Amino acid sequence: MGSVKVYGPPMSTAVSRVLACLLEKEVEFQLLPINLSKGQHKSPDFLKLQPFGQVPAFQDDSTTLFESRAICRYICDKFPAQGNKSLMGSGQVGRALVDQWVEAEAQSFNPPSSALIFQLVFAPSMRLKTDPAAIRESEAKLKKVLDVYDRRLGECRFLAGDEFSLADLSHLPNAHYLVTATDRGHILTSRKNVGRWWEEISTRPSWKKVAEMRKAPLA
Amino acid sequence: MGSVKVYGPPMSTAVSRVLACLLEKEVEFQLLPINLSKGQHKSPDFLKLQPFGQVPAFQDDSTTLFESRAICRYICDKFPAQGNKSLMGSGQVGRALVDQWVEAEAQSFNPPSSALIFQLVFAPSMRLKTDPAAIRESEAKLKKVLDVYDRRLGECRFLAGDEFSLADLSHLPNAHYLVTATDRGHILTSRKNVGRWWEEISTRPSWKKVAEMRKAPLA
Ligand SMILES: N[C@@H](CCC(=O)N[C@@H](CS)C(=O)NCC(=O)O)C(=O)O
Ligand SMILES: N[C@@H](CCC(=O)N[C@@H](CS)C(=O)NCC(=O)O)C(=O)O
Repeated sequence: MGSVKVYGPPMSTAVSRVLACLLEKEVEFQLLPINLSKGQHKSPDFLKLQPFGQVPAFQDDSTTLFESRAICRYICDKFPAQGNKSLMGSGQVGRALVDQWVEAEAQSFNPPSSALIFQLVFAPSMRLKTDPAAIRESEAKLKKVLDVYDRRLGECRFLAGDEFSLADLSHLPNAHYLVTATDRGHILTSRKNVGRWWEEISTRPSWKKVAEMRKAPLA
Repeated sequence: MGSVKVYGPPMSTAVSRVLACLLEKEVEFQLLPINLSKGQHKSPDFLKLQPFGQVPAFQDDSTTLFESRAICRYICDKFPAQGNKSLMGSGQVGRALVDQWVEAEAQSFNPPSSALIFQLVFAPSMRLKTDPAAIRESEAKLKKVLDVYDRRLGECRFLAGDEFSLADLSHLPNAHYLVTATDRGHILTSRKNVGRWWEEISTRPSWKKVAEMRKAPLA
């Protein structure tokens, strides 16, 4: 049993980003359940690990971290010789290109895709009213972003170049919900290069394993 | 004249984040004007540098990058021995803590503070109608985020620990607008530890210089 701990349910997109990274890097870890519907992420003990009261939280011996993308970069830096060795790119420029596309995911892809997933998947399951204007706006924004991706992926096999990296991995959690749990998957799959890329990155053994873990009932 | 080029107006928050980093690292650079009101950021030439059509774009010899926070990390990695040497923290855990708080800025501080700045500064200057509900919502979100910051800054002098880092720097562009160009500066300055921290980081020579550059008319 490794000393690495992840707190949070695999069905959370941010948690599953960290899980995918740990599996790619072949790092052993313990997954500790945090029950969001019982509000465990707002308990005093959890707030010591993640002061904003969100999942995931992460521990590696005495190091506690939050923010899924920062946790992923740390995992790559801490275990350079293990598992997938090109997840953070290679060399200064290679790393910067990975970083740039992780930021594009965080800044451009995540906001509209998270909003869509909330409206189309989580709101109905929580019996909340959905907001058609928010759906239209997010969908329009996401299409524009994916047009840029489609051009990029017409030049390169993966976002940061020839190798699968954290940049691609970081998109899996939201893209997976869009394609498998909504009727808007075509926004990705109908785009020639984005569709080819999605097929390639979502069938990696690491992601297939996370997808299985996501099906587990909430702890 | 260095071979480092930044494209975009200093009054853009994302551009000024990169300028503050270059000044802290004492890296020479050329600032190339991009006129947003003339739509130069959507021109085919600019889209080759920044495919989303946003400022800044960045060049270092043959390396082209976008996304302000990725550019800042690259600058720190490329010029380790120059200027401020602790901007990315030190050691693996130090770097991860800086990274974590840069992410907190990007994910938690930036969305509500950008929305407030848009509503209170840019919308009026472009004669757009402001949205009181959006202002209320962003203000409430920002206050919650800054309550977390206030607790953190009660334990540490700076966000990532004892030293000023990219984590603090990354907040300067939006915080500066809130404090100097809106009537909501008290959201920061009235909080004991956030106020102390804001005073300390905003009076650094590097930021004072960026603040001067920001006053220049749009190119
Ligand atoms: N930027 C954070 C986002 C974390 C986040 O939004 N987590 C969600 C689940 S995917 C959560 O905890 N939501 C409950 C809440 O915000 O109260 C990260 O990447 O780690
Ligand atoms: N995440 C990007 C954001 C860039 C951004 O939003 N730039 C704004 C100015 S601060 C811009 O170019 N706005 C014009 C537009 O989006 O059309 C970064 O940090 O570089």
